[in-house]
Amino acid sequence: MKIVVLGAGVMGTAFTMPVADAGHTVHLVGTHLDGDIIEEIHETRVHPRLRSRVHDAVTPFPVAGLREAMQGADLVVLGVNSHGVAWAANVLADVLPPDTPVVMLTKGLHGDGESLHILPTFFRSQLPPRLGDVAVMAIGGPCIAGELAARRHSCVVLGGSDPAKLGALAAALRTPYYHVWTSTDLIGLEVCVAMKNLYALAVGLVIGLLERDGIADNGAHMHNLAAAIFAQGLYETAYLVRLMGGDLRSVYTLPGAGDLYVTCQGGRNSRMGRLLGLGMPYAQAKAKHMPNESVEGAMLAEAVGDTVRAMIRAGKLDARKLPLMLAVIDVVCHGAPVEIPWDAFFHDTE
Amino acid sequence: MKIVVLGAGVMGTAFTMPVADAGHTVHLVGTHLDGDIIEEIHETRVHPRLRSRVHDAVTPFPVAGLREAMQGADLVVLGVNSHGVAWAANVLADVLPPDTPVVMLTKGLHGDGESLHILPTFFRSQLPPRLGDVAVMAIGGPCIAGELAARRHSCVVLGGSDPAKLGALAAALRTPYYHVWTSTDLIGLEVCVAMKNLYALAVGLVIGLLERDGIADNGAHMHNLAAAIFAQGLYETAYLVRLMGGDLRSVYTLPGAGDLYVTCQGGRNSRMGRLLGLGMPYAQAKAKHMPNESVEGAMLAEAVGDTVRAMIRAGKLDARKLPLMLAVIDVVCHGAPVEIPWDAFFHDTE
Repeated sequence: MKIVVLGAGVMGTAFTMPVADAGHTVHLVGTHLDGDIIEEIHETRVHPRLRSRVHDAVTPFPVAGLREAMQGADLVVLGVNSHGVAWAANVLADVLPPDTPVVMLTKGLHGDGESLHILPTFFRSQLPPRLGDVAVMAIGGPCIAGELAARRHSCVVLGGSDPAKLGALAAALRTPYYHVWTSTDLIGLEVCVAMKNLYALAVGLVIGLLERDGIADNGAHMHNLAAAIFAQGLYETAYLVRLMGGDLRSVYTLPGAGDLYVTCQGGRNSRMGRLLGLGMPYAQAKAKHMPNESVEGAMLAEAVGDTVRAMIRAGKLDARKLPLMLAVIDVVCHGAPVEIPWDAFFHDTE
Repeated sequence: MKIVVLGAGVMGTAFTMPVADAGHTVHLVGTHLDGDIIEEIHETRVHPRLRSRVHDAVTPFPVAGLREAMQGADLVVLGVNSHGVAWAANVLADVLPPDTPVVMLTKGLHGDGESLHILPTFFRSQLPPRLGDVAVMAIGGPCIAGELAARRHSCVVLGGSDPAKLGALAAALRTPYYHVWTSTDLIGLEVCVAMKNLYALAVGLVIGLLERDGIADNGAHMHNLAAAIFAQGLYETAYLVRLMGGDLRSVYTLPGAGDLYVTCQGGRNSRMGRLLGLGMPYAQAKAKHMPNESVEGAMLAEAVGDTVRAMIRAGKLDARKLPLMLAVIDVVCHGAPVEIPWDAFFHDTE
């Protein structure tokens, strides 16, 4: 196959490794923000943030080369971040053949003020009518980009609506280290992998709380607290998944539990969580310590905050089932101080 | 209330802290193996392994003082390990009034060669007929003993059959740092908190694999691999919970996801996993590095291994749903080398 990856961030670029190892030809097209990255790959074959050599079967293109890169493409993969989905639909509008499937690596949810939508739905809504039947699939699961680029074992789920297409594509993507399952629960997959960023930020709060309060005299940390937040995150994810029409299986397998687990092992959401846990207001933490970094958990809070509040007012969401999400939204969108809403956790689990 | 805790290990002793803080009188009775601990608490008020001062409202008793300690008890709490359940039933047989409820902190499953049983069921089966109606409840969830003893926030679930009794007892146990939910899904609770030890051991394998293979040139660890094992552990737990009549909600809340998460943050199961991941056979790892320590994950494999194999042969369990559990059983019970059964993970999740 000839595969075009749009977006040369860490995840888009890391994804080229198993794909190239599986024998496919890969065109890696940077966005308008990836100019320096594409240039550096051209010159050194090394991605500056991944710190890995890019596979020889990968040809880098600047965004201006998209049309050329798309010639004869069998598959388009979106590696943009959640802010780049509408942009990607826009630039693909002219060059995407209607029979070329799209796979999204992007994680997030779209809030339109009244409802929440998974990104494949939002992406499709941004395409011109002639592309209304494009197959849009997604890959999710616990997959830190640097590990994938280093060919370390990674287990992911390819979600979509057509089992035959999913099976054929998964078979084409697998390598001895890239383990791909398939799922027709695209909703569950997408809700889980989006929410994990917000809840990993919440688990990360504990790093800051521990730094603030210190290790106890007997050596005790705060793992119990982190684990309770982790569990509440999955509980709220399960509520949203079911409400939006997804399947609980996604919650307790790779997309939910697996991806939340891996995202809690460090990274930008955890680092932001730590700053907030130390007592720093969100705006200050972002501006002072992470001005040029995408904190997907905070971006999700910003993307859905108003919609979630509107849905609660309209009776479409039950606030009692989402106290942790609402606390994170308040911290990120309204500068609220961190307060763990213990007594609201696990509402009505009986 | 007057509460008797039987078993002065780290968990039994840590549990006395919130209970005493809640205003109850506590008698902490050591088992026949806890003689030194009880003596040390008598002399110094410090538990040697918890490294915490025991609350002033706690009176320590040696096992010989059980009858005296039981005078007027309103509640008995079992803090023994999974090997001590039959022993506890035996020593309580003469002194337990039939209207005094029992709460188990012990985690494990009992395999009788044909079926698996949760420990409250097994404990009750070991009591004399006159005690056949004793209410047996259990507490589970992410609760590292040292953190509880240091009064750090901990969230747990009290499981049992009678909602009114559960509600009243939970209210009596709560403190500002000990957050107690109730659940009538005693089966789900007990299966989750038992299996988490085995799966935390499996996640711990990755620590050894990483030490063996090293960090990648780009700094990559093996979190993706650990997360996949974590998710497979929850998937298998969900299978067992449903098969035994429990509720999925326990899997994706505190007993399952929360407790597995906290158990993966270190401790004896992780340490044993590391040794096995480094390539050491189980018998050697146990004898050489952890001769006097209870590794509950390995103890569970030993307790249920033969029964699980027999149930598979009898068609009562589906081996395809439990590849990770079977791999751990093979490693622990049969000295097998560690091999992650990737391709068998997430069987038939569609």
